[in-house]
Amino acid sequence: MAILVVGSVAFDSIETPHGKVDHCLGGAATHFALAASYFTDVRVIAVAGEDFLPKYEAVFAARGIDTRGIEHAKGLSFHWTGAYTGNLSEAQTLGTDLNVFERFEPKIPDVYKDSEYLFLANIDPVLQARVRSQMTKVRMVCGDTMNYWIRDHAANLAVVLRELDVLLINDGEARMLSGETNSVKAAEKVLAMGPKSLVVKHGEYGATAFFGKRSFSSATAVPRPFRAPALPLAEVVDPTGAGDSFAGGFYGYLASQPELTPAVFRKAMFYGGVMGSFAVERFGTERLQAVTREEIDARFELFREISHLDSAI
Amino acid sequence: MAILVVGSVAFDSIETPHGKVDHCLGGAATHFALAASYFTDVRVIAVAGEDFLPKYEAVFAARGIDTRGIEHAKGLSFHWTGAYTGNLSEAQTLGTDLNVFERFEPKIPDVYKDSEYLFLANIDPVLQARVRSQMTKVRMVCGDTMNYWIRDHAANLAVVLRELDVLLINDGEARMLSGETNSVKAAEKVLAMGPKSLVVKHGEYGATAFFGKRSFSSATAVPRPFRAPALPLAEVVDPTGAGDSFAGGFYGYLASQPELTPAVFRKAMFYGGVMGSFAVERFGTERLQAVTREEIDARFELFREISHLDSAI
Repeated sequence: MAILVVGSVAFDSIETPHGKVDHCLGGAATHFALAASYFTDVRVIAVAGEDFLPKYEAVFAARGIDTRGIEHAKGLSFHWTGAYTGNLSEAQTLGTDLNVFERFEPKIPDVYKDSEYLFLANIDPVLQARVRSQMTKVRMVCGDTMNYWIRDHAANLAVVLRELDVLLINDGEARMLSGETNSVKAAEKVLAMGPKSLVVKHGEYGATAFFGKRSFSSATAVPRPFRAPALPLAEVVDPTGAGDSFAGGFYGYLASQPELTPAVFRKAMFYGGVMGSFAVERFGTERLQAVTREEIDARFELFREISHLDSAI
Repeated sequence: MAILVVGSVAFDSIETPHGKVDHCLGGAATHFALAASYFTDVRVIAVAGEDFLPKYEAVFAARGIDTRGIEHAKGLSFHWTGAYTGNLSEAQTLGTDLNVFERFEPKIPDVYKDSEYLFLANIDPVLQARVRSQMTKVRMVCGDTMNYWIRDHAANLAVVLRELDVLLINDGEARMLSGETNSVKAAEKVLAMGPKSLVVKHGEYGATAFFGKRSFSSATAVPRPFRAPALPLAEVVDPTGAGDSFAGGFYGYLASQPELTPAVFRKAMFYGGVMGSFAVERFGTERLQAVTREEIDARFELFREISHLDSAI
């Protein structure tokens, strides 16, 4: 089933202990779409500037991603400059040039209106809600957000949270959103805000899913949390977009399945980790552009092997 | 098979957001021995003071733990005062009264000399090495250490590391010992120092095992890392001794098995998490004294359920 993603297409200038790149293709919608494209059809709504040359659009096309919803505006694309040090767990933002993204007003092409899976990447919750309300045929809505919206746009974000089947955030965001330091209590509070389920990403330690009563139509009781591992990697070249790639693998797999069951959700968590682990192996989207389905399946088995008692090491 | 543990028996005065306790029974050897006692016979070498009354010795006896190696010295027992705030991930040490522990000179009773499993809890590496050298019949040696020995007693610690089948430390200690922030590179460096395998504890995120070439007599290649989850807990009452309880569950299970295989090692990692999860539910050793084997097995199944793709949620 097709996923519609609305979010940012950007250029990133990144420095990590492994090197430096200038203006490489990035943005949440980009990482998400590339990762999800290995599982299902993907349609993108975003805005790009005049520097979004045909060669960049070709990156999407090569993966069969529908870019008819990427608006071409006058001016430059969103540009993010950041650096990572130490164990690369947190980015230091050095510059955020919103450019054409500042006046982003998502427009949904008619050919996108039948999308059954919606992913609201990290953008202004007002825009997230506006897109959501126009998509009358969606079966499932998954969304992301960040500290800025949590802290300064809480009322707008609250509207979006009530619409979500899955909220995908990281530890710090879960703590900020809930005001709780304990992860279980934080999850309970976040679920009480509306999302049917919550996936909290722990960076190099994997991710945990927490479920509300309404997570699965088949569930009679609240399902237990589920923990998916991350792959211990000797070399993280560039963590930019790891979370969006996780989301792409997670949601791409979900959308490719006929029904949402606990078993499907668990596998989706593993595929999320798999795509995140590929994303960080190279700068920007380089690895996500070139990975193969065989490599994805082999890495999925690796994730199983490093976490399951019955592994055949 | 019997485990011999050498380490501290102490009294702890602890404050957490859940309350305050004064002089409750603690110490690395105590937590370790109680946790391991649910799996195998345990023998303790430690020193205690005149405040180590028969009622405290009875805590060990109730679990069938051999305390003939606990020396009763003139003076007071080791006393630690600490506090936890926030998400209880790190203790703030408010006081360390070594008392009789300051001149601890481990003496190994003859009846302990046939022990096949040795656990060197966190004490001066000079003492760890001395005990190790006297145990001529051991099949396996597992050990712990801490930042103080890593930083200021590196040469002495290096001697111990070469003797270990398993080194059990936490993330911060692995980084300090290796000088590496990347966990995989850190593990490689630590394994190059001698231990056949390394278990790195991640607190609420579980633990990862890294293996060297000599980890298993049956292994032809270097086995992959293995990640065990921790249980998401809504209430952590007192994290003191969680690491030692992990070690007790881990090593107790290992020692109870006829052979060390990768499958046994993986289950041991889960049992470590299980015992750690019980330990933090109450202050001090309260929960470890009273848990049942049925509860342990049920929680082991819970650990499997929250981490395995084929769980029947």
